[in-house]
Amino acid sequence: MENATVKIGIVGGTGYTGVELLRLLASHPNAEVVAITSRSEAGMPVAELFPNLRGHYDLAFSEPSPEVLKGCDVVFFATPHGVAMSMAKELMAAGVKIIDLAADFRIEDMQAWSKWYGMEHACPDVMPQVAYGLPELFRTDIQQAKVIANPGCYPTSILLGAVPFLKAGLVKLDGIVADGKSGVSGAGRGANVAMLGAEMSESFKAYGVAGHRHLPEMLEKLHQQAGAPVDLTFVPHLVPMVRGMESSIYMTLAQDVSQAELQSVLEAAYADEPFVDVMPAGSLPETRMVKGSNMCRLAVYRPEGGNKVVVSSVIDNLVKGAAGQAVQNMNVLCHLPEITGLQQVALMP
Amino acid sequence: MENATVKIGIVGGTGYTGVELLRLLASHPNAEVVAITSRSEAGMPVAELFPNLRGHYDLAFSEPSPEVLKGCDVVFFATPHGVAMSMAKELMAAGVKIIDLAADFRIEDMQAWSKWYGMEHACPDVMPQVAYGLPELFRTDIQQAKVIANPGCYPTSILLGAVPFLKAGLVKLDGIVADGKSGVSGAGRGANVAMLGAEMSESFKAYGVAGHRHLPEMLEKLHQQAGAPVDLTFVPHLVPMVRGMESSIYMTLAQDVSQAELQSVLEAAYADEPFVDVMPAGSLPETRMVKGSNMCRLAVYRPEGGNKVVVSSVIDNLVKGAAGQAVQNMNVLCHLPEITGLQQVALMP
Amino acid sequence: MENATVKIGIVGGTGYTGVELLRLLASHPNAEVVAITSRSEAGMPVAELFPNLRGHYDLAFSEPSPEVLKGCDVVFFATPHGVAMSMAKELMAAGVKIIDLAADFRIEDMQAWSKWYGMEHACPDVMPQVAYGLPELFRTDIQQAKVIANPGCYPTSILLGAVPFLKAGLVKLDGIVADGKSGVSGAGRGANVAMLGAEMSESFKAYGVAGHRHLPEMLEKLHQQAGAPVDLTFVPHLVPMVRGMESSIYMTLAQDVSQAELQSVLEAAYADEPFVDVMPAGSLPETRMVKGSNMCRLAVYRPEGGNKVVVSSVIDNLVKGAAGQAVQNMNVLCHLPEITGLQQVALMP
Amino acid sequence: MENATVKIGIVGGTGYTGVELLRLLASHPNAEVVAITSRSEAGMPVAELFPNLRGHYDLAFSEPSPEVLKGCDVVFFATPHGVAMSMAKELMAAGVKIIDLAADFRIEDMQAWSKWYGMEHACPDVMPQVAYGLPELFRTDIQQAKVIANPGCYPTSILLGAVPFLKAGLVKLDGIVADGKSGVSGAGRGANVAMLGAEMSESFKAYGVAGHRHLPEMLEKLHQQAGAPVDLTFVPHLVPMVRGMESSIYMTLAQDVSQAELQSVLEAAYADEPFVDVMPAGSLPETRMVKGSNMCRLAVYRPEGGNKVVVSSVIDNLVKGAAGQAVQNMNVLCHLPEITGLQQVALMP
Repeated sequence: MENATVKIGIVGGTGYTGVELLRLLASHPNAEVVAITSRSEAGMPVAELFPNLRGHYDLAFSEPSPEVLKGCDVVFFATPHGVAMSMAKELMAAGVKIIDLAADFRIEDMQAWSKWYGMEHACPDVMPQVAYGLPELFRTDIQQAKVIANPGCYPTSILLGAVPFLKAGLVKLDGIVADGKSGVSGAGRGANVAMLGAEMSESFKAYGVAGHRHLPEMLEKLHQQAGAPVDLTFVPHLVPMVRGMESSIYMTLAQDVSQAELQSVLEAAYADEPFVDVMPAGSLPETRMVKGSNMCRLAVYRPEGGNKVVVSSVIDNLVKGAAGQAVQNMNVLCHLPEITGLQQVALMP
Repeated sequence: MENATVKIGIVGGTGYTGVELLRLLASHPNAEVVAITSRSEAGMPVAELFPNLRGHYDLAFSEPSPEVLKGCDVVFFATPHGVAMSMAKELMAAGVKIIDLAADFRIEDMQAWSKWYGMEHACPDVMPQVAYGLPELFRTDIQQAKVIANPGCYPTSILLGAVPFLKAGLVKLDGIVADGKSGVSGAGRGANVAMLGAEMSESFKAYGVAGHRHLPEMLEKLHQQAGAPVDLTFVPHLVPMVRGMESSIYMTLAQDVSQAELQSVLEAAYADEPFVDVMPAGSLPETRMVKGSNMCRLAVYRPEGGNKVVVSSVIDNLVKGAAGQAVQNMNVLCHLPEITGLQQVALMP
Repeated sequence: MENATVKIGIVGGTGYTGVELLRLLASHPNAEVVAITSRSEAGMPVAELFPNLRGHYDLAFSEPSPEVLKGCDVVFFATPHGVAMSMAKELMAAGVKIIDLAADFRIEDMQAWSKWYGMEHACPDVMPQVAYGLPELFRTDIQQAKVIANPGCYPTSILLGAVPFLKAGLVKLDGIVADGKSGVSGAGRGANVAMLGAEMSESFKAYGVAGHRHLPEMLEKLHQQAGAPVDLTFVPHLVPMVRGMESSIYMTLAQDVSQAELQSVLEAAYADEPFVDVMPAGSLPETRMVKGSNMCRLAVYRPEGGNKVVVSSVIDNLVKGAAGQAVQNMNVLCHLPEITGLQQVALMP
Repeated sequence: MENATVKIGIVGGTGYTGVELLRLLASHPNAEVVAITSRSEAGMPVAELFPNLRGHYDLAFSEPSPEVLKGCDVVFFATPHGVAMSMAKELMAAGVKIIDLAADFRIEDMQAWSKWYGMEHACPDVMPQVAYGLPELFRTDIQQAKVIANPGCYPTSILLGAVPFLKAGLVKLDGIVADGKSGVSGAGRGANVAMLGAEMSESFKAYGVAGHRHLPEMLEKLHQQAGAPVDLTFVPHLVPMVRGMESSIYMTLAQDVSQAELQSVLEAAYADEPFVDVMPAGSLPETRMVKGSNMCRLAVYRPEGGNKVVVSSVIDNLVKGAAGQAVQNMNVLCHLPEITGLQQVALMP
């Protein structure tokens, strides 16, 4: 399949996940972007809105057209929540695979979904054909799915860091704390006083302490992976930087395990994974070590004198946390080598 | 005492705590800085090294002179660890009060101190005359002390957030997690590749996961305040900003307590404190809300569905976390109104 | 007059100049803020919108009330262009002095004003009672004025740097280039995609090359000060930081003058000015050296081998470039010592 | 030649140009890095010093070995000034092509070179075989050269912006002003208090006003391109960001030329250049539009009412300003398509 051309449609490409998809697909040898839609910007060349794309795309935003999208192999939704589910069935009927970068298909529990997203789900009957698009944990599902729910950025960083220890039975299922930190691009490209440069620069804050939509998503997937309900406290924070996400995950040991064993468990879990890198013992990842790349880098520690495991997990929230993971899912779906088009070296410094 | 003049010496003023002391003392009506010493910069006007002080100080750095320092009422040590303890007894004999912004007197357990700071303590016999300079928790001690151990920045933010709940018996003594985040000025003014702007900008990382010197300091003070040993996991992180510190503190409820009760406990604890501000229920502090000011701002949450208390605590690491708290301690020591010279409004934006 | 109380009204205090006025007035011994108005936020405590003010103000935003404002000694307009001129005459009739931080009264040439601000001026007949509020150049006018046009931030930094050389006849009137750079707070607190943290961080750009409203303002004042029309090319740039403005001003020598003479001319011009600081020969100002303070710091160079004078001028755009200068103007208007309430030391680091 | 393998040596790869070369060469289909040398880090894997390279390179730093380097097709010098000239002749004798990212071969005038770099040149006799590695202006020379002097970052951005107008005779040769702004990575990876994050963040400053090494380099190349000596005033500035460089170039029209004609001249000059992009009339480049890419983006304006041309030129100082341009030169030298390995899309946001 390595010479195959994948015809791609992108619905709603005027946000940061849209431009990042275009950046990555520009160097993907099998990708042909045939349409990128935007109601508000129809007619505008994508390279006018995002001048980094000048010289790489001649494409202009177009009105969403079912006909054009139905001619695609894969359609990415880089839209607000609620859009993908409204168009899914029509596209599926035409044989199109769907990758939703929003949250429409992330939670199987429809009641929980409705509570957190404040709307009725448009197509609960589609859920059996959905896979949760975290290839390192759900690759087999993805290969057979029609619809991919591309995970949230926090869940990506936290699940990759926590699951190996839960699966190995080394840590307790309760009392887990995940302290997440995200760059401001995670808040999207909408005009918003709180996200002005003059507001967010040189400041750090917690937010969403009372509850965040990524919590039910994580609880469900952790339950599936651990085989039992998991108790997790999650607090996100905003970092004065554009890209990058770090999650520090605190778990309680269920038995006495050495630092070296913890390191081995993590290395074994991801030995064959091209996009998860376990840092050498004694070192720690920094978000700049993954900037612009699809890597997740992990480190694990057992702080002296206690019974905690601490995992530090970093990703680029727009790549492994969004558009890069979406392309990785596309590669799995289309039976392409999973690393195709995703070997960018992180920009450092 | 409000018209009294306090003669002040500063030992080692070429770092960030030194310049911050000078900034604050410039608007302190009772402060007269008579000497600021630096071996490396002796002879250089302070305003040449720190041009923000141009027009405020004519003073130059001088060689440390015991005679001059002995003529002071208060001597601040803004030096590396190990300097204050080497000069303490001579100054105390001359009736000088000492405020050490480094760690020489922060830990009463001399064995723990030696382990973490890698040297023998020079004057264990001075420790009975030392108070830990966190006025909100140790004010009475400070009033009677000869030497003040100005707390670490992380301990300041974490103790102020955690102690009210421990004292009230509302939370368990074990399983506490403190996830701290600091701006880069906390690393000091030494040349250091890892702290270059090109290295730390636009990146976020955990550090010191295996162990950090502020941990034994916090464990000792938490033990004293709670009346029993406390189990704390502490992970510091570096934020790409100059000033500011946020600590998210996760504790487990010992009983069923509502969000409103938690809010009340915190408000009651600090009702009379000029430098601790409990944010209104439902809001969260940001580090910019304290930038340049001596305030600590706190919020407390009980996330839905769990048994955790989460406290978010913010300070300016150079003010309430260092020089501002030192001036507050000086005010207490010298029987001046505690807010004297410390009413700067935070710079926002 | 040093014990006088100045009753102050602020119209439109929800932007950055509003909160900065409040920050500065909080430590002004003669200032009593009796009202701060906002149509959109009427009823909200100012400390809720700007939590840095918690503990400093009990005041809430109120609907603009002519009665209340007429009872003030001074009313500041921290509003969009066009508001101050619509209320000026009514307030003047009641004996209120007006300080407009917007542009309504900055340009005497009403035709130029209308062209650049896109509206008819509401009260051209008031202009004779207006002074341009740059005290270092127009102090006598300000003392006698009823209305103060608080200068633009770029004009403040550029006029202070250029005028001494023009007045001394040392530089040519044509071919002047002013390359200005501003932090993002200069763009205001309005929601705006281009000013999002994710857009402006880690990027630098020129803007307004085709024309900027501060150009006609500068041309008029330069003409007045030089006694003849001046030819100036001005290009503003956006710097990825919150506060601070630097202008590099390039002028052509009209005669052969040494670097030392240029230094002397600048030092002589501002020898008695508390808010203009000429840096020592051989050094250069940085914007952080004035952050949060009302200082303008200047340096002058004659680069080797050419006939150019280069001046680097830095201010905090929100202080000397806006709210601080407004308070300085209030002090002049009210016959208070000009430095009252304005001796903040810049925050560095 | 498209399937050729170019054997590459890198001397001195522990700085930012070194890691950036490795980043770019990792995706260059014809590049084989056979050695990267460092005296101080010999033995350390490059991916340990620069973890963004983990998974991309197994190579370790090695002691510089003439034998190994002589087996290369091309050797890049990412060293301090003075190193390349000391090894050039030996490598040239072995048939190796040299690309020096430092300044050893940038200035033909040996007297000027010695004055600005403070040392005697080691091999003036090599200069006839040197080409100045700005392919857009000196491509033919490069194709035939043995040694490439990779240009300084400021000269790259300023020459590309100014030369078309000088060559066309549209602007005067005197009174040119270039106001340059660079991100802090331009200062290199050496420990240095002035470049600490706590020093450079949230601040902007001019530097090197009295004289900068890039000035004689620009004067010589401008003279060559314009056919007559050019008078240029150049002031560099430091921007609080990691990567990116903007130069605003002010020239005086020699005749009356419209904005549209200026746009046409620039577009014509670079119509066939893959790495110079003339922005559409009315728009302006931002440094983020080239971050991580080898593009130079330009805009030209004639501000209303004057006789100046203003050009805004942006590059990534580490790519088109250093390592990217070096790879572009390698492609020219090795008769590979010039864009090979250099089609990275800029990272935006």
